Amino acid sequence: MPVVLYHGGAAANSLKSLLPLFEKKVDFKSHLMALVNFEQHEPWFTKINPRGQVPVLVHDQYVLDESTLINEYVDDTFPGLPLKPSDAYGRHQMRVWTKFVDEYFCPALSFLGWHAMIKNAVAHLSEAEFEAKVARIPLKEQQDKWRITAKQGYTKEQLDEWRRQVRVSIARLEQQLGQTTWLAGDTYSLADIAVFSMALLLPTRWQDDVNTRTTPHFMAWHARVSSRPAVKNALAMPNPVAGTHEAAAKAWKT
Amino acid sequence: MPVVLYHGGAAANSLKSLLPLFEKKVDFKSHLMALVNFEQHEPWFTKINPRGQVPVLVHDQYVLDESTLINEYVDDTFPGLPLKPSDAYGRHQMRVWTKFVDEYFCPALSFLGWHAMIKNAVAHLSEAEFEAKVARIPLKEQQDKWRITAKQGYTKEQLDEWRRQVRVSIARLEQQLGQTTWLAGDTYSLADIAVFSMALLLPTRWQDDVNTRTTPHFMAWHARVSSRPAVKNALAMPNPVAGTHEAAAKAWKT
Repeated sequence: MPVVLYHGGAAANSLKSLLPLFEKKVDFKSHLMALVNFEQHEPWFTKINPRGQVPVLVHDQYVLDESTLINEYVDDTFPGLPLKPSDAYGRHQMRVWTKFVDEYFCPALSFLGWHAMIKNAVAHLSEAEFEAKVARIPLKEQQDKWRITAKQGYTKEQLDEWRRQVRVSIARLEQQLGQTTWLAGDTYSLADIAVFSMALLLPTRWQDDVNTRTTPHFMAWHARVSSRPAVKNALAMPNPVAGTHEAAAKAWKT
Repeated sequence: MPVVLYHGGAAANSLKSLLPLFEKKVDFKSHLMALVNFEQHEPWFTKINPRGQVPVLVHDQYVLDESTLINEYVDDTFPGLPLKPSDAYGRHQMRVWTKFVDEYFCPALSFLGWHAMIKNAVAHLSEAEFEAKVARIPLKEQQDKWRITAKQGYTKEQLDEWRRQVRVSIARLEQQLGQTTWLAGDTYSLADIAVFSMALLLPTRWQDDVNTRTTPHFMAWHARVSSRPAVKNALAMPNPVAGTHEAAAKAWKT
């Protein structure tokens, strides 16, 4: 039963779906895609996922999208380390965290990241080339995000609000991790995986807010997650946006 | 083991968490709250849910929020009709629908509904009374929503975009229901419950887009869901916003 993950490298939502595959030692084929080159909107891929989004997991005849829900499927389907708490209340708490990532923490970081990075990433394209790429994007919301971040960028009010949301998120994480070893209780779970995939670079990008003095419990948790063999293996994968990330690191908070 | 649901009546997210309790015949206490009177932000309730949001399920020592995740818990915990598909792929498809409701369909309907209703709902309050109520709301995003909808309302561009999203949602539902009896396949599930709770009034409020000619599969599904005894029982519960809903029905699409 072949397993293929189409993904954008060891960052954000793609990292989120890579981690359970490594934790559970699933024998999968990694198909790395060049997201800043709009590869996910090419016809060969929209035949697989009409929404033109990654990550996508293909397992036998099934095609699955949405990283959070791919992870539930992977944990339900493959043997190895369980990544959901064994009790219903623990699973509820786990899902509160994965939902918080999807609806609050990740969008705030994503809008800030796109604002900082996309303009440079598409600077080599002519106006006509850029518009031709954007016209192929299936989702209008994604078209808007590409156009705005490639052109004028977001407003100061929008950026300030997303920065506030990141700080609210950091405080919420620190509070929980002062009470429990892992986000959903006593065991490492999809909650830790979802948050870590977004929070990976907080200690370097948000140093004023995330450090051993201000957020000691978060930092200890970050080190605990980072030291897991599966996490090390996932982070050793090629990351096509690393260069762009690096270039944008200084701009991130301005 | 006492079970209590704090909720705002048989509509939207509160209806969503009432339905599984009725389907599974859980013996629960219904605690109806007056949302337009800001009861969910009163100190007695924020002691239960610091986020000041409903619905909230209390089961023994556990306090659970987030209607979609409450429903996963209820299905995991109580006997009776299973409301999740028995296979992992079916559960994935079910969660794609519940996630779509939470991140796309419900927000669009909710912003349109608030825009149409809240101004009238708080017209009896003085400026000072209103601000005192809003100041108690724990979440800044909710404060913003109350202030904007009570004062200037949303812009034409915002309203048009949410109307577009509702139409996209209707098309997506019609397409799926042309292929399968229920949204996640052959069995009634939390997917149908999540969508129905939001789509309940579409045939009356969005008549031009939702009718037996344009969306025959959706209409047949709507009738199938409506005829379930558990749904009839839930919809027979008191609905404190019905009057407000009714008054806003004409304004909804303007």
